[in-house]
Amino acid sequence: MAGNSFGKLFKLTTYGESHGKAIGGIIDGCPAGIQLDFEAIQNEMNRRKPGQSKIVTQRKEPDTVEFYSGIFEGATTGTPIGFIIHNTNQKSNDYSHIKDVYRPSHADYTYDKKYGVRDYRGGGRSSARETACRVVAGAIAKQFLNGIKINAFTSSVGEIFIDKPYQDLDFSKIENNAIRCPDETIAQQMISKVEVIKKQGDTIGGTVTCVLQNVPSGLGEPVFDKLHAELGKAMLSINAVKGFEYGSGFCGAKMKGSDHNDKFNEDGSTQTNLSGGVQGGISNGMDIYFRVAFKPVATTLQKQETINSKGETVEMQGKGRHDPCVVPRAVPIVEAMAALVLADYTLLRRQESKQW
Amino acid sequence: MAGNSFGKLFKLTTYGESHGKAIGGIIDGCPAGIQLDFEAIQNEMNRRKPGQSKIVTQRKEPDTVEFYSGIFEGATTGTPIGFIIHNTNQKSNDYSHIKDVYRPSHADYTYDKKYGVRDYRGGGRSSARETACRVVAGAIAKQFLNGIKINAFTSSVGEIFIDKPYQDLDFSKIENNAIRCPDETIAQQMISKVEVIKKQGDTIGGTVTCVLQNVPSGLGEPVFDKLHAELGKAMLSINAVKGFEYGSGFCGAKMKGSDHNDKFNEDGSTQTNLSGGVQGGISNGMDIYFRVAFKPVATTLQKQETINSKGETVEMQGKGRHDPCVVPRAVPIVEAMAALVLADYTLLRRQESKQW
Amino acid sequence: MAGNSFGKLFKLTTYGESHGKAIGGIIDGCPAGIQLDFEAIQNEMNRRKPGQSKIVTQRKEPDTVEFYSGIFEGATTGTPIGFIIHNTNQKSNDYSHIKDVYRPSHADYTYDKKYGVRDYRGGGRSSARETACRVVAGAIAKQFLNGIKINAFTSSVGEIFIDKPYQDLDFSKIENNAIRCPDETIAQQMISKVEVIKKQGDTIGGTVTCVLQNVPSGLGEPVFDKLHAELGKAMLSINAVKGFEYGSGFCGAKMKGSDHNDKFNEDGSTQTNLSGGVQGGISNGMDIYFRVAFKPVATTLQKQETINSKGETVEMQGKGRHDPCVVPRAVPIVEAMAALVLADYTLLRRQESKQW
Amino acid sequence: MAGNSFGKLFKLTTYGESHGKAIGGIIDGCPAGIQLDFEAIQNEMNRRKPGQSKIVTQRKEPDTVEFYSGIFEGATTGTPIGFIIHNTNQKSNDYSHIKDVYRPSHADYTYDKKYGVRDYRGGGRSSARETACRVVAGAIAKQFLNGIKINAFTSSVGEIFIDKPYQDLDFSKIENNAIRCPDETIAQQMISKVEVIKKQGDTIGGTVTCVLQNVPSGLGEPVFDKLHAELGKAMLSINAVKGFEYGSGFCGAKMKGSDHNDKFNEDGSTQTNLSGGVQGGISNGMDIYFRVAFKPVATTLQKQETINSKGETVEMQGKGRHDPCVVPRAVPIVEAMAALVLADYTLLRRQESKQW
Repeated sequence: MAGNSFGKLFKLTTYGESHGKAIGGIIDGCPAGIQLDFEAIQNEMNRRKPGQSKIVTQRKEPDTVEFYSGIFEGATTGTPIGFIIHNTNQKSNDYSHIKDVYRPSHADYTYDKKYGVRDYRGGGRSSARETACRVVAGAIAKQFLNGIKINAFTSSVGEIFIDKPYQDLDFSKIENNAIRCPDETIAQQMISKVEVIKKQGDTIGGTVTCVLQNVPSGLGEPVFDKLHAELGKAMLSINAVKGFEYGSGFCGAKMKGSDHNDKFNEDGSTQTNLSGGVQGGISNGMDIYFRVAFKPVATTLQKQETINSKGETVEMQGKGRHDPCVVPRAVPIVEAMAALVLADYTLLRRQESKQW
Repeated sequence: MAGNSFGKLFKLTTYGESHGKAIGGIIDGCPAGIQLDFEAIQNEMNRRKPGQSKIVTQRKEPDTVEFYSGIFEGATTGTPIGFIIHNTNQKSNDYSHIKDVYRPSHADYTYDKKYGVRDYRGGGRSSARETACRVVAGAIAKQFLNGIKINAFTSSVGEIFIDKPYQDLDFSKIENNAIRCPDETIAQQMISKVEVIKKQGDTIGGTVTCVLQNVPSGLGEPVFDKLHAELGKAMLSINAVKGFEYGSGFCGAKMKGSDHNDKFNEDGSTQTNLSGGVQGGISNGMDIYFRVAFKPVATTLQKQETINSKGETVEMQGKGRHDPCVVPRAVPIVEAMAALVLADYTLLRRQESKQW
Repeated sequence: MAGNSFGKLFKLTTYGESHGKAIGGIIDGCPAGIQLDFEAIQNEMNRRKPGQSKIVTQRKEPDTVEFYSGIFEGATTGTPIGFIIHNTNQKSNDYSHIKDVYRPSHADYTYDKKYGVRDYRGGGRSSARETACRVVAGAIAKQFLNGIKINAFTSSVGEIFIDKPYQDLDFSKIENNAIRCPDETIAQQMISKVEVIKKQGDTIGGTVTCVLQNVPSGLGEPVFDKLHAELGKAMLSINAVKGFEYGSGFCGAKMKGSDHNDKFNEDGSTQTNLSGGVQGGISNGMDIYFRVAFKPVATTLQKQETINSKGETVEMQGKGRHDPCVVPRAVPIVEAMAALVLADYTLLRRQESKQW
Repeated sequence: MAGNSFGKLFKLTTYGESHGKAIGGIIDGCPAGIQLDFEAIQNEMNRRKPGQSKIVTQRKEPDTVEFYSGIFEGATTGTPIGFIIHNTNQKSNDYSHIKDVYRPSHADYTYDKKYGVRDYRGGGRSSARETACRVVAGAIAKQFLNGIKINAFTSSVGEIFIDKPYQDLDFSKIENNAIRCPDETIAQQMISKVEVIKKQGDTIGGTVTCVLQNVPSGLGEPVFDKLHAELGKAMLSINAVKGFEYGSGFCGAKMKGSDHNDKFNEDGSTQTNLSGGVQGGISNGMDIYFRVAFKPVATTLQKQETINSKGETVEMQGKGRHDPCVVPRAVPIVEAMAALVLADYTLLRRQESKQW
């Protein structure tokens, strides 16, 4: 109940603080007999890790994942997969200046209110470092979901956004640039924007769009656990996320029914897809797509006034190595969470099957 | 796992199809000793029920809730509260024309793919009639959450929206008009818009904004079960919802950190509240506010082409009594789901307490 | 968490007090497309209901179950099955004498300590009347588990017990006598014993043995959710149960490994079955058998001293119509709970399958 | 759902195979602010570890536990506690002889049926080595349950048993002998018995009795999650357990109600305690006591016939270093599982409290 697990049948539980010895997790419920591609897993880790380009934090963490169980002769055994990522580059004294200080728009204040105690180093458990564990599990989920395509990309940075439908984009170009935007021209504008922001010691928000293709129809539980509701929760659980919309999203709320309805083709596919691949909480076989809003990182390198734990006003200035814009590093995290949801709902779907 | 339960400690499970004998549910985990105000519960039902005004469906359902257990001498006993709402006004032959037809942007097709069988009458389980049970449970949750204020209202219909911050609105005016908009001028524009749409046999979308006040700090589980993530899931589980944002939401994704950070006052409150009352997934004692996007109702009274279960093109026309705009009836449902989330997280919070 | 649900994928939630308007429940997760035999369901209810013979309580409850959802044209739809059993024969004034009295070895005292309030009429929620809902769900689970044989029977009453292995018994004779013992001679001794006890205004304990046949291998989750652990919990959750053993049970604790090990045949079956059909928490395809101990009913018709809620000593005498021995009515309840466990683990097993 | 988690609010998830790199786990939901005594934790590990006396397996594993998260400056932080125990002494080639062989009364056959693959080295996941993780979590639960006394001891080995009620035993003597029996005379008989059995290359079963004292009244959820039902499941989930009884247990099934009922004292305590400290699934403040049956270890050092994965008859002989009797090492595991149940139900109880 303490909220460190995700999924019902394909279930990830994580642990670890930003500056503890290690972070890690347990994947429980991954079916037996999946031959794992460890290079692919590490590749996902590399997409998320710090220091990968000039526009992300310059911390260096190898983020090498070690597996301790659940795998025998390269394949999953159906038993829980325990894994660990050692924290190698924590500079805890970077954080002594915030020991008693509540950083604005961080979780320092709320952790203190909730627990009465906190590991203040690097945000402790509230740090996005925890998401590295999600990427490990997501990478394995992707391998289980063989055949389903999961592509996320940066769709906006600040006011700069891709002005094409996703169908006109070439997903193979996502990894071609540091911002992970498949439209090369827009990508360059985004990168320039982040560089300016970084020089100012400031940060900026953005959005990630994610497209799930080849998802079979029938995934999703129709009342409280609608497929898009679980995707929404998954995305909203990522650090810094402020909003989620799928299909027509907030634009759909401005439309008329006669314009919004997706007409069927005779094969059951639809001519438009404002539904976003989900109807009544259940996938219909069309592309599932959604958009996730990330606020700007709260840690800026500018001076700010704030309070300490005694309620006194103090001045602070972010130190250390922070991301001017989280969005490019969030792309693999969004994919990982989408993969976890799909893996879980695939297992839920399996047990309904009469064939067994 | 079949997704008909919501909540961990304060838990609602519902059953029932639109045109079965009854719908109902079980509230499990409601603490003992809460003296219930049954009139207040029925009043919430009345806010949701059909036929309450000219701009909603003209079906007549009394939607009287009967309690069968868990209450003794007017107070909760800590044992499960079983309740039932009889379906009294189902005209099942209204639906014989859709027996084998997949209505566009409804759940007919996906239910068939998932289950191989469906109760087609009125949408069966996929009907928003199920939300009546949520309102019952939400009404009890509200009474448990004595002191917390939960106010939702219609913030837009189509392109018409309230252009003021919620702080400038008088929530006591929400119930003054049929559209449930506290800004009287905007309310009249919205109502006129819905009337025009209704005459066209069409439907229109809209948004609901919800504000939670006097929520204590410390509610929320910080990693996967962040308070706003669970609120998001709760809202996305309501029929016709396409998007959720809280605090700065999608606008926040365009901002810079130096503008977005909420400066602390010395008492721990913040000068601005772009965080939306939640930091790191945990409430900070400020107002929690969020916005929910509803698509236009899929059933229009206009002729549409669609397919039947054999994949043949057929023409259909919505019959029966449908809502031209769900938003006003969605307002109490949004409040109910918010109340369920807060009740659940309040119990989760309680067990962390050292005082017991 | 309040403990009124059982099962993970095939899940029953129940509500209702002994003397409220009704008891009922929701079965969530029952797969779609199961054509139900309603007469068979009612037949199970009749095996549990009061007044069925001279040696059980003479209360008369028709215990007719009504289904409100999840069934369409006689078959399950995959949506939750809501059902209700009206309480028709409650004589609440039978219980006014125990309003403030804690009956010895009942749950009156502990409910008061836990909840601070209780529905004292007939034991309220603590009454075994709740098990009627389990029998409904179990009857449906049995139909889902088509092919698996579930037979429980009375194996002892007081000191009288069947002295043969279950393999030498004819399960078709279980329903031939009021005590539900397939050995006719022993059955008569048991019945005579209960009649004597009843005349004394006393009660007596006994055991139920249950045999599950044709269970496929591979059911069970190997660590905490071992198949026999869940069966044990299921049985221990039945009112008045004090013990559970499977396979060699407590006798096995006296044995040597060289005697206890079950030798394999070449087809994977075993020559002996001291393992009780489960190895490492997973079924091996052999018969699963276990034994459940029921204490004597706490309500006797003899005078007893006890205390009231003020801690004063008072004298009380059981009134009303009580069971001198619960065991014969417990037989269908044991079967129902076994069926629920098997149905749940069958669904868990399905999702592991690679074939989907 | 894959069954590697235990508990609802105080929750343990474990991973690891007998001969993998490490075993470990995550404790989620442990409240913040508990100052941990690490020596006490290691001491519990030492009570379970192999090689501690002549009558247990002579394998040498230091079983040193390392904590990676959830603890800051010696106290719990409310975030998940990740821990690891490296496997240092695995001799995997000890097991090459059983690679394709199904050992009788082990889980080899059932794992193969369930998963289609298994880590055969030392039983892999089915090894009781997993219980080391339970002991870690149980040791922390014990510290959380400050004030509650948890004492388990060996109550029988084969036919040798303690013939006194637990009230006449001095629990401080449990650790005085290798078999963990507080009656010194009986202890010596048990040890001699195990030594004889060991020389024969055989194994023997036994029982563990556990007594929980100072448990407050009100713990337990009354229907499916009765306190004793969860204790039963917890115990039945331990390797080699065949039975569980609490209070009067199987003896109670032979008794009359007039003898079995526990008469109240005016302070709410009872004169006898055949109820075993639990009434209606809820603790009543009296001692909770139960007994757990362990079968003899399946691995003997005698020659046995068995089959291989092709269904051919083969001869095998147990090698390696095995326990002739698991009971003394099971004592701390029984205590650990009892502590986990009590910690979980304590948190469940807390959230019912009105004081928060």
